[in-house]
Amino acid sequence: MKIAYDGRRFYGFQRQPNLRTVEAEIIRVLTKLGIIENPKDANFKGASRTDRGVSAFGNVVAFNTFKPELTSPRILNHHLRDVWVLGRAQVPEDFHPRFWSKGKVYRYYLLNEGFDIEKMKSCAEIFVGVHDFSNFAKLEEDKNPIRKIDRIEVLQRGKVITVEVEGESFLWEMVRRIITALKLCASGALSIEEVKRMLEEEVDKKLPPAPPENLVLWEVKYDEIFFEKDPYAVEKAKREFFERFAQHLITASIFEDWFTSL
Amino acid sequence: MKIAYDGRRFYGFQRQPNLRTVEAEIIRVLTKLGIIENPKDANFKGASRTDRGVSAFGNVVAFNTFKPELTSPRILNHHLRDVWVLGRAQVPEDFHPRFWSKGKVYRYYLLNEGFDIEKMKSCAEIFVGVHDFSNFAKLEEDKNPIRKIDRIEVLQRGKVITVEVEGESFLWEMVRRIITALKLCASGALSIEEVKRMLEEEVDKKLPPAPPENLVLWEVKYDEIFFEKDPYAVEKAKREFFERFAQHLITASIFEDWFTSL
Repeated sequence: MKIAYDGRRFYGFQRQPNLRTVEAEIIRVLTKLGIIENPKDANFKGASRTDRGVSAFGNVVAFNTFKPELTSPRILNHHLRDVWVLGRAQVPEDFHPRFWSKGKVYRYYLLNEGFDIEKMKSCAEIFVGVHDFSNFAKLEEDKNPIRKIDRIEVLQRGKVITVEVEGESFLWEMVRRIITALKLCASGALSIEEVKRMLEEEVDKKLPPAPPENLVLWEVKYDEIFFEKDPYAVEKAKREFFERFAQHLITASIFEDWFTSL
Repeated sequence: MKIAYDGRRFYGFQRQPNLRTVEAEIIRVLTKLGIIENPKDANFKGASRTDRGVSAFGNVVAFNTFKPELTSPRILNHHLRDVWVLGRAQVPEDFHPRFWSKGKVYRYYLLNEGFDIEKMKSCAEIFVGVHDFSNFAKLEEDKNPIRKIDRIEVLQRGKVITVEVEGESFLWEMVRRIITALKLCASGALSIEEVKRMLEEEVDKKLPPAPPENLVLWEVKYDEIFFEKDPYAVEKAKREFFERFAQHLITASIFEDWFTSL
């Protein structure tokens, strides 16, 4: 299943006792509807264990079930809160959403506080290609710090800048630490040469990750897995996304008026 | 004290047992700091008992205290949550924030979903002046339904429309029911003549109020009461308003991308 969720409403993706997590919310509904008995027997797996605060438009979860007819997105979405099933696919027995992934796309959202966009774009280029990202990640044991970034695109859209990052796989906090570098570069606090050195040499102090709430796991890519859409569920999700867009835009306008009027 | 608050975070203004209300939040801090002993003895009064969901940028509360030196906005704001003191004034003994008010300004925020702005402006003109607003209010006993609206201004600001309404005093839900009429007019569902008839004649069915979350009590006006500002508190509030603006704008952008990408 391809799923979207509002990361602000959860304590991260991975299930943890007594906390509202994305996995727990999905498993709650799957077990309630009798689609799975429990996550272990159903071999429930997610493509990406996004951090607390991070949202997704296209994360992927997989599980075994004897009742595939019950997994219709319109039924699941009726029971899910702050999670939306946007598509489903029947997959080979040995499918694993993480290991079968051919790449991931992240989108980071920044308020344009007078950033130099051209400088941000130049800084982004440094990260494209194969690099040792040790200085731009929270390292985990036994993980190869060498990764390949296929593409970083910086787009100015009114007051908001989006940065889209595509790669085969990412280290922990890697996207958010790259974003911090881009912000510091675009505000003039770091030169492009300094960022280059941080990527190529050892550093005393790593840059901290940018806030998780502004990050969206946009897509997990696969070869030859086609997600079937449920038109009714898609229309309903669209309406709900529009409703949340409208609410947040109005609230943003209210606070904008307050700080400009003070 | 002139106060701002985020109405989404409270169960309305007026204190109610076991509910988080704006009044309760202010009284909690005033008693905790020893500024008042209890609201009754301090003759604690608010200018406007805004409905659940409604925000304010300039509501006014008044109380008696023997310790005016403790009422500095910077101290109060350190303890208040989702409420900000933006100014204070020493007032005459018989001051009452509601009865002394010379007028109120409300601001309503609308997402522009293809509204005909010119038609909305024409419709707004109908309400200006002295009218019996019985059909555009939830009537309370013993309240004179005749009110005077001084000004309604419709402003288009990008994707958002603001409607500013000024009058001496308002009936319950009056602004929000007028807004519903403006929306229906601007979307073509009601003609200006129909709205005029609703204002002048008896109706079978009143229009419902527009959502409270989009309404802000912008200002309560007085003659010769001057609110003294605390520059430090104002700067801090500005930063917090900016922070909330940024968060909501980013979240709006994320959901906007989701519904346009589905």
